[in-house]
Amino acid sequence: MSIQITFPDQHQQDFEDGVTVSAIASGISNSLAKKAVAGKLDGEFIDLNLPIEHDGALEIITKDSDEGLQILWQTGAFVLAAALKELYPDIHFGQGAAIEDGFYYDTDRKDGQVSADDLETVAKKMRELIKANAALKPVLLSRAEAFEMFKNDPFKKQLVEAAGDPIKGYQLGDFVDFESGVLAPSLSVLKHFSLLSVAGAYWEGKSSNPMLQRIYGTAYFKEEDLVEDAKRRQEAKDRDHRVIGRDLDLFFVDPEVGAGLPYWMPNGATIRRTIERYIVDKEVADGYEHVYTPVLANLDLYKTSGHWDHYREDMFPPMDMGDGEMLELRPMNCPSHIQIYKHHIRSYRELPLRIAELGQMHRYEKSGALSGLQRVREMTLNDGHTFVALDQVQEEFKKILSLIMDVYKDFNINDYTFRLSYRDPANTEKYFDDDKMWNQSQTMLKAAMDEMGLDYYEAEGEAAFYGPKLDIQTKTALGNEETMSTIQLDFMLPERFDLTYVGNDGEDHRPVMIHRGIVGTMERFVSYLIEMYKGAFPTWLAPTQVELIPVNLDLHMDYVKELRQKMVAAGLRVKIDDRNEKMGYKIREAQTKKVPYTLVVGDKEMGEAGVAVRKYGEDSTTEESAKMFIESIVAEIGNYSR
Amino acid sequence: MSIQITFPDQHQQDFEDGVTVSAIASGISNSLAKKAVAGKLDGEFIDLNLPIEHDGALEIITKDSDEGLQILWQTGAFVLAAALKELYPDIHFGQGAAIEDGFYYDTDRKDGQVSADDLETVAKKMRELIKANAALKPVLLSRAEAFEMFKNDPFKKQLVEAAGDPIKGYQLGDFVDFESGVLAPSLSVLKHFSLLSVAGAYWEGKSSNPMLQRIYGTAYFKEEDLVEDAKRRQEAKDRDHRVIGRDLDLFFVDPEVGAGLPYWMPNGATIRRTIERYIVDKEVADGYEHVYTPVLANLDLYKTSGHWDHYREDMFPPMDMGDGEMLELRPMNCPSHIQIYKHHIRSYRELPLRIAELGQMHRYEKSGALSGLQRVREMTLNDGHTFVALDQVQEEFKKILSLIMDVYKDFNINDYTFRLSYRDPANTEKYFDDDKMWNQSQTMLKAAMDEMGLDYYEAEGEAAFYGPKLDIQTKTALGNEETMSTIQLDFMLPERFDLTYVGNDGEDHRPVMIHRGIVGTMERFVSYLIEMYKGAFPTWLAPTQVELIPVNLDLHMDYVKELRQKMVAAGLRVKIDDRNEKMGYKIREAQTKKVPYTLVVGDKEMGEAGVAVRKYGEDSTTEESAKMFIESIVAEIGNYSR
Repeated sequence: MSIQITFPDQHQQDFEDGVTVSAIASGISNSLAKKAVAGKLDGEFIDLNLPIEHDGALEIITKDSDEGLQILWQTGAFVLAAALKELYPDIHFGQGAAIEDGFYYDTDRKDGQVSADDLETVAKKMRELIKANAALKPVLLSRAEAFEMFKNDPFKKQLVEAAGDPIKGYQLGDFVDFESGVLAPSLSVLKHFSLLSVAGAYWEGKSSNPMLQRIYGTAYFKEEDLVEDAKRRQEAKDRDHRVIGRDLDLFFVDPEVGAGLPYWMPNGATIRRTIERYIVDKEVADGYEHVYTPVLANLDLYKTSGHWDHYREDMFPPMDMGDGEMLELRPMNCPSHIQIYKHHIRSYRELPLRIAELGQMHRYEKSGALSGLQRVREMTLNDGHTFVALDQVQEEFKKILSLIMDVYKDFNINDYTFRLSYRDPANTEKYFDDDKMWNQSQTMLKAAMDEMGLDYYEAEGEAAFYGPKLDIQTKTALGNEETMSTIQLDFMLPERFDLTYVGNDGEDHRPVMIHRGIVGTMERFVSYLIEMYKGAFPTWLAPTQVELIPVNLDLHMDYVKELRQKMVAAGLRVKIDDRNEKMGYKIREAQTKKVPYTLVVGDKEMGEAGVAVRKYGEDSTTEESAKMFIESIVAEIGNYSR
Repeated sequence: MSIQITFPDQHQQDFEDGVTVSAIASGISNSLAKKAVAGKLDGEFIDLNLPIEHDGALEIITKDSDEGLQILWQTGAFVLAAALKELYPDIHFGQGAAIEDGFYYDTDRKDGQVSADDLETVAKKMRELIKANAALKPVLLSRAEAFEMFKNDPFKKQLVEAAGDPIKGYQLGDFVDFESGVLAPSLSVLKHFSLLSVAGAYWEGKSSNPMLQRIYGTAYFKEEDLVEDAKRRQEAKDRDHRVIGRDLDLFFVDPEVGAGLPYWMPNGATIRRTIERYIVDKEVADGYEHVYTPVLANLDLYKTSGHWDHYREDMFPPMDMGDGEMLELRPMNCPSHIQIYKHHIRSYRELPLRIAELGQMHRYEKSGALSGLQRVREMTLNDGHTFVALDQVQEEFKKILSLIMDVYKDFNINDYTFRLSYRDPANTEKYFDDDKMWNQSQTMLKAAMDEMGLDYYEAEGEAAFYGPKLDIQTKTALGNEETMSTIQLDFMLPERFDLTYVGNDGEDHRPVMIHRGIVGTMERFVSYLIEMYKGAFPTWLAPTQVELIPVNLDLHMDYVKELRQKMVAAGLRVKIDDRNEKMGYKIREAQTKKVPYTLVVGDKEMGEAGVAVRKYGEDSTTEESAKMFIESIVAEIGNYSR
């Protein structure tokens, strides 16, 4: 018997039934055989050394691919568990898996949980196992065998229950684990690994379940990749907005009072307020009309909009008001702005009509997904909706994009790319059905980008259901791509809400709606800025812009207060450090708090109506007249971060 | 048999059993007999001509009292119904009653509802009845009789069901009505009445019930009072914030989308934003730390605070998040600010600690109580909480009050009074139990008021449960007293949340919390200002500050645009009226929109770099240089409404 294998280049070849991926790879080339870690048969991973028993499309997974890393990390999770079991025979396991940058395993021990202090011991045991390089054997367990094997393991037992029969697993010496995915054929590939941290994680991610200890690790095929990864992690840690947020007293979240519901402390609130006023002023100057609309509305509104049908799982539960009214916390602001539009009969003379709001919304994120200000359940979006005639789309799109780029400059955001998302014309299910509309609007957006001379990439099949869009992608401190701003055409909501305007011809016409966000939600934007600035906010955003330190509290306090008064009158945010501490200590602390300007004031400065200025991050001090200093800092603030 | 009557002055006198109030009044004096309209026996109204059959305390109700007016208005409602029945024999009645400024009756007709157009006819019929002056006879109906009598009246039947047995009523000719309260002895007192309006009202106030037509009227014993009332109503109508709000496109409420949930249109939003920025800046300059805290919190927070126990009926229904968490829309911001306080260990050096926020809250008001921006379900409060040591209360109180009075000046609010509310020491149930605290704090507040040289009135038994307070009372357009600002001491929440600060002595101490609101909620404050200014907002608050009108669109538009650019750069809100309309029409319309400055620009102005300025409410125009105009309006805005 022979089987037919189709390779990615569509080339086909016959092999003996039962041939392994490893053998096929060796047949192609020695170097390929060396790099191979697994196969992918008809889209499913397959162990390098298991027999192939039917025709199929085969891809050989090598060390230099993302999927190769996934196999490595799955192997890492398995070996981690094996080492833990040797060290702590009484340990119980939850789930383990490869994740986007490494692997983890969940553990539980009655007599002392595994902690960060144990990681060195665990890593040592893993190294022993890797060195011994015992065979890693694929096994098939019957459901009954698996039950017997994990009868004392409460969480694993549940996983067996949820699994099929038989269950695929691997064996290393006495240790057996299952459903960990395909592993590398040999432990030797795992040479460059490290264990990273331990954190609590609820069983199945539910806060009503027991808390397990999740042990994180990562691994790479090459040592330099592991070193690079460590650097990246350190950088991310240094920029972690939750850590900086705590150190600079910007915000906190207390899951006892409400998961995903941040409290903005005065410092963080000052940053947010400055951004809010900035963006509102910018938008008003650009022709937007700002409104305030309620966070609650009758559930019917979200039935009409379609949110209730298509977006319900992200929405909060409706509130029964007892008199037949069901109120819903809004998940988006678009239906609210449609109410503003519909409140008057609109004329073509009013278009483009630009409605904007700092709109608070609520989205039900799973508690496991929540993180600081980055993923929250209550958020305030710098939202805007422009209602235009179809032939105004291109100009309005350019106007919005110019505004976005202008705002980015003010925040010194330079690292971004443009993604133009189209429909997949073959997928008629996924997209609003109107060929003409799609063709016309996609052409307009592309033409606008070209007219503005901007680089962009086109993503077919990435559009929203209701129209094409432009996403502006930035990178987080961890290097992940994130959408910062968006411009989305919408042909559907104007239909659903029967929006019209009276045209030049006296007839009713349907406007196009453009959803646009510039800085996104206050929560996510501030978390982004914290990471981008590493907490050292530019002067215009810094909670405290100037810290005044009198050399001697008795002698210089009056002059310092006088200075403060002048600065406050000039619109500056100023603090005096009047504690009974050494001057050096105060200066260091002002640096820790990342205050842009620390001003030391003693006899000399008092005599000359001057200040000794130390800029954040600089070691030296310059003497300036107080007047000059105020003028220059006010000018700097007026210039934003440019 | 004789009965003993006790008069309000405690004087007692025996009368024959069955004596009437009328007879007793005649016995005292002729003038009293003439003025009497009813009696009040042991606190309950009694008809002037019904026999008194037992001992009791009697008060004679006269025409010159508020209760006399109530009797008159009850009579008015009855006669209104009698007239309607004569005119429209098929009419059905709901309830009728005296209200705070007149009376109403709810009606329903299958063949054409009673409308405002019918009021003259109805009034004419009432005047006929009054002139005929038939006897108004008190009657007692058995339940069975009443059922028979109202068997074709669907709403009245329900009222019979809810009533006792027998039912008190009155008869005028063939017309019988019940439960309308005690009426005047003769229709002649109703000479000075007027019917005011017709409005829809749900049966029993529930929106799921049928809509009835409510006919409003009022009446006075003297003609001049009726005239005065009409004037007051006209004034209130001219100032009605709902009417002005619609005319100036400030806001709207759509009960279909959410009762009590206002949408702020761009014009209203501009006013609100200006006020919000103003008050935040004012507070920050005064030492407040502004924060943002979530509108949602775990219900437990409101259990700890006591709101859930004592305030539940004003709160929204909790939302079950499915993982054991119950989230609640906050009814007040105090518990949120307590979270901010508790986030750090606090030292005496930080006190007074002033936390402030534009805090959004939700309160469940019955749909019948909702009104424009005045009574809403979602509101944003200019809220603040100061945490102080006990010995700082007096100084902090003075500081807050000074800030309030300063803010009032900026809005030109001059008509207000101070009410200092104490506990009733005899009522230990109603007040937090701590004699020393009450005595000390009440003394401090009084001393502070005296030190500031302010007039105030003391209201015993008006304090909150948790401490004494100062309310600052203003008057609405209708002349009703309303609390605009408040300063409340709170000794209870610091206990409930176990708040502490580390004193000078290194020990833990309990702070006092001061709740304070300056301009109250944005919703109610703006509704107040609309009525106070009659929509003619001072320049600093006006949505459009300057309207530019080119004399000729072809010739003067460029210059007008140049002017606008200069004005916008100076921070002004400017509109150009570039419609193809006559100039006179444009000028009139700018006046209707109550724009503070209308600038007409033609050849003359263009030649001289000038503008022709017409101030709102003035008929004449003055020529000024554009530069001078901009300087003077900027100065005016900087000075607020002073």
